[in-house]
Amino acid sequence: MIELIPVRGLPEIRPGDDLAALICERTELRASDVVVVAQKAVSKSEGRLVRLDELEPSDKARELAGDERDPREVEAILGEAEEIVRERGPLVIARTRHGFICASAGVDHSNAPEPGVLVLLPLDPDASAASLREGLRDRAGVAVGVIITDSFGRPFRQGTTDVAIGVAGLPAILDLRGTRDRIGYELRASRVAIADEIAAAADLARGKAEGVPVVIVRGLRLSGPPGTAQELVIEPELDLFR
Amino acid sequence: MIELIPVRGLPEIRPGDDLAALICERTELRASDVVVVAQKAVSKSEGRLVRLDELEPSDKARELAGDERDPREVEAILGEAEEIVRERGPLVIARTRHGFICASAGVDHSNAPEPGVLVLLPLDPDASAASLREGLRDRAGVAVGVIITDSFGRPFRQGTTDVAIGVAGLPAILDLRGTRDRIGYELRASRVAIADEIAAAADLARGKAEGVPVVIVRGLRLSGPPGTAQELVIEPELDLFR
Repeated sequence: MIELIPVRGLPEIRPGDDLAALICERTELRASDVVVVAQKAVSKSEGRLVRLDELEPSDKARELAGDERDPREVEAILGEAEEIVRERGPLVIARTRHGFICASAGVDHSNAPEPGVLVLLPLDPDASAASLREGLRDRAGVAVGVIITDSFGRPFRQGTTDVAIGVAGLPAILDLRGTRDRIGYELRASRVAIADEIAAAADLARGKAEGVPVVIVRGLRLSGPPGTAQELVIEPELDLFR
Repeated sequence: MIELIPVRGLPEIRPGDDLAALICERTELRASDVVVVAQKAVSKSEGRLVRLDELEPSDKARELAGDERDPREVEAILGEAEEIVRERGPLVIARTRHGFICASAGVDHSNAPEPGVLVLLPLDPDASAASLREGLRDRAGVAVGVIITDSFGRPFRQGTTDVAIGVAGLPAILDLRGTRDRIGYELRASRVAIADEIAAAADLARGKAEGVPVVIVRGLRLSGPPGTAQELVIEPELDLFR
């Protein structure tokens, strides 16, 4: 059995906060737990915030924003975007520095610490995950996995699902190639994006509006070398679905 | 807390098998459980199977198959495809009759009942889910949700995740539009594909090669009217990510 356990009672996270300490004060971690943390908590602790009144919108930002969106917010999005993948009115789908394709290049004003502040994705979420993992090991004395998640829309299907944008201490992809089914055929879905499935699972225990950024996933039996969320990014020329 | 509980000991499913009975013999369902069933078990019980030796490949099937794939299998895929979305060598991404965009139009030879047999997607997985839900209510005396899942690849990201292809008795999308965060901003990720997240979560408890097609998800607190997997299909003209 696998358990999805929300960590309740975390305060609003502020720049410089020690997330590992805040988590360990509220829950008793066990070896092989996977600690799933919403991106926004990590970004806030790392100070990845920008104030709207510090942004001077470019002509491009004003053009995209039109009358429907604050051009300073669009300016922040353009600043986080390596490439604009789609634009329609004020909506922008972009490729981030990490290679993620997502709405608004991951820039978000919901769950920000205060009005007029935007939250940006961590600069290197895999490094953030590794660092949090070390902090948790130091404080709890057990080796856990860490996944940092964000809610992404996707082509072909309605709605968002949570995906892994940072991974440490567990495989990101479960490679079943060569694994045979009961009658000996190689399995079709042979590379499972296990870190994305864990991210999605954790979101079920989170309760969006309640502000529960940390969920423990307990009871996974994962084998294989630890991976990174970068492994989940596919090169465009290999992407048959694009 | 949410629990993901695999239902162990199910036999190989055969056409005409009563899935509801087989499940209820092996687990005690509780009200509000969500019963997540891998597509292949449902397809087999419904006889959605085709024998390779009954298929006569078309020229198109032979052309796509080349030397790398059995042209009869490609013929089965073309038969299930409403539209070929991408083709590269023998790999085909297709739109199915249900509107799903997936590899091989959902046709699969892994976990088939015997060699030389392909498993096709259920004709109407939402109806299959509704029917299974009724069977479970009749036998267990409790109202549960049912999700039928398949493993889909997706654009932009490596690996497959399990998604919902049939839904009954629970919302498919959690609509948080209008929900405010702690400081009063409307939430960005405001339509959550909850049925896809449940499908992904259940896959964690399944163990691909072990043949555990049914997982119980217990402890979800879902509100809102019941939905269907058809609601998860997005119209191409509304699909900003495509």
